[in-house]
Amino acid sequence: MAEKLENLQITWRPHFKTHQSAEIGDWYRDYGVNAITVSSPDMATYFAKNDWGNITIAFPATPLITPRINSLAQNLNSLRICINDPVTAQHLTKYLSESVEFYIEIDAGFGRTGLKAEYLDKLNEIISIAQKSQYLHFYGFYLHDGRTYQVQGQENVRDIMTPVFEKLSRLSDEFKEASICIGDTPSSSLLNSFPGIDELSPGNNVFFDLMQVAIGSCRPEDIAVAVQCPVAEVKRKSGACVLHGGAVHFSKERIDWSGKEIYGMASRPVKNGFGNLQQGNYLKSLSQEHGWMVLEEPGTLDNIKPGDRMTVFPVHSCLTANLFSHYITPDGKRIEKRILS
Amino acid sequence: MAEKLENLQITWRPHFKTHQSAEIGDWYRDYGVNAITVSSPDMATYFAKNDWGNITIAFPATPLITPRINSLAQNLNSLRICINDPVTAQHLTKYLSESVEFYIEIDAGFGRTGLKAEYLDKLNEIISIAQKSQYLHFYGFYLHDGRTYQVQGQENVRDIMTPVFEKLSRLSDEFKEASICIGDTPSSSLLNSFPGIDELSPGNNVFFDLMQVAIGSCRPEDIAVAVQCPVAEVKRKSGACVLHGGAVHFSKERIDWSGKEIYGMASRPVKNGFGNLQQGNYLKSLSQEHGWMVLEEPGTLDNIKPGDRMTVFPVHSCLTANLFSHYITPDGKRIEKRILS
Repeated sequence: MAEKLENLQITWRPHFKTHQSAEIGDWYRDYGVNAITVSSPDMATYFAKNDWGNITIAFPATPLITPRINSLAQNLNSLRICINDPVTAQHLTKYLSESVEFYIEIDAGFGRTGLKAEYLDKLNEIISIAQKSQYLHFYGFYLHDGRTYQVQGQENVRDIMTPVFEKLSRLSDEFKEASICIGDTPSSSLLNSFPGIDELSPGNNVFFDLMQVAIGSCRPEDIAVAVQCPVAEVKRKSGACVLHGGAVHFSKERIDWSGKEIYGMASRPVKNGFGNLQQGNYLKSLSQEHGWMVLEEPGTLDNIKPGDRMTVFPVHSCLTANLFSHYITPDGKRIEKRILS
Repeated sequence: MAEKLENLQITWRPHFKTHQSAEIGDWYRDYGVNAITVSSPDMATYFAKNDWGNITIAFPATPLITPRINSLAQNLNSLRICINDPVTAQHLTKYLSESVEFYIEIDAGFGRTGLKAEYLDKLNEIISIAQKSQYLHFYGFYLHDGRTYQVQGQENVRDIMTPVFEKLSRLSDEFKEASICIGDTPSSSLLNSFPGIDELSPGNNVFFDLMQVAIGSCRPEDIAVAVQCPVAEVKRKSGACVLHGGAVHFSKERIDWSGKEIYGMASRPVKNGFGNLQQGNYLKSLSQEHGWMVLEEPGTLDNIKPGDRMTVFPVHSCLTANLFSHYITPDGKRIEKRILS
């Protein structure tokens, strides 16, 4: 990613919501990264304490977080937020006491947050409200197009993103000073050209997961995070086992995998590594602490007993990592991450 | 619950996996509770530090946790575990250095963990392996019948549980000394007779949630935990709003609610309370931090703006509470809970 974006002269502003770890964050510095993206003021506070001076909070700001924006901005070189509504802009104009840059989020078709690129009046309304404040500085447009998570393969991702790039280019023509940042992992991973884009802020690609394998963003062997789960019971007649690995470890994220709804997929741990993904061994259901793992991979059922361990690759690594206090590397080193306070 | 079980002369041994809070745990002491249930050694350690001396870990033990069982048992008056497999029994016989009581879990039809009540040979095999150890003491049978979560109403829950009580009674005839404990919230809440049962260990009823409302275990006004979520954007054309409330707040637990798949349901907060459940305002989808809330309740859409708050009742309060570091009471008091370490 670092090499590709350097060649394209695009700034890499990685999203740290996936790993939420100061130590893993530091790895990026060797690749020239000095500005990051997070999804909440809490996460911004954590990384600010860990020497990150340039942070984007890529979630729509609301009047409720104005005090937190002021205190964060006081301690950062640059804080960027998203303002998608005149109500929020108005409120910030009144109560902001520190300089803050802002994006307006663009909704190019995904239909979650942001404004349509065609609604120039609305975009201009927010920008002109902001101009009344000496502290609010329009920086550009931010876009996370979640539609790329709903398709498979480079070509389909490109088909979604090509008209998006065109839309954003027309916006650039209209707003000459605007910088443009996009954030989804499938297009960041699969495309090699991002016409008109100034910054890229993918997060999930630090670990990848089964969802990204299904999309085609990565190969199974690229997945860099997994959960080692004890086998609690073997259900030979059912061809399954019960793992200590449930919704408190994987959230309840599921995915359609070749026609089956699954919550995770196993490998048998090897020394210093995960071992190969076994498509026949998959989590079929989760309760709070229990995971029901179907064991269709030849040879597994006959050779498994309580107290063995299965490595489980998560469907969605961001949600799984969020449920743990730390990582353990294959050679046993503990890496801390943000925990709730 | 305290009153009902006292009248029935059944011991209340509540499951603390739902609230995971030392302070909330203390509330139970006023009702005569002095023994509890948890779902992992970590949780047992937390409550042991908070002066609980009698703890059941209601999750199948594995050889991997023997060292933790030894150190827990050293600090408790009584530790009970579940042993469902001869492999685990064998291992414990060899490595246990502290006295521990154990249940064998019974699977009466749910099909998750435990042994069928009819497999007397297997039950006897585990018990006789355990007899080789001076530290392992057979205590009885534990049952969590998750089928009661799949039906609605007292009558249907009773139809599931009546044959279960009969099965367990036959087991009691066979194993004269065995104590019997059952754990599901629907039967604990809805039934008034538990023939042959010595202990009840429901957990969820400390808070209840939308799932229990749907089952009929409680009324909407009985739900005692909810998440106050900021409104980030109002999508008037879509008749919806985007909340700061996503999978990192609610897990991805969903439920069929009158034919709609929902992830939570709102009320408008009132002073010192949650306000009434509004069935028309519900979470239709969740991403990591975002919740998409459909606003069909008359009057909501026209009166909502960014920075307002919606109270969201969780589908599954155990998973939601697990994602937070503390609770806030309606009068603003902070209640700590267990966080990951």
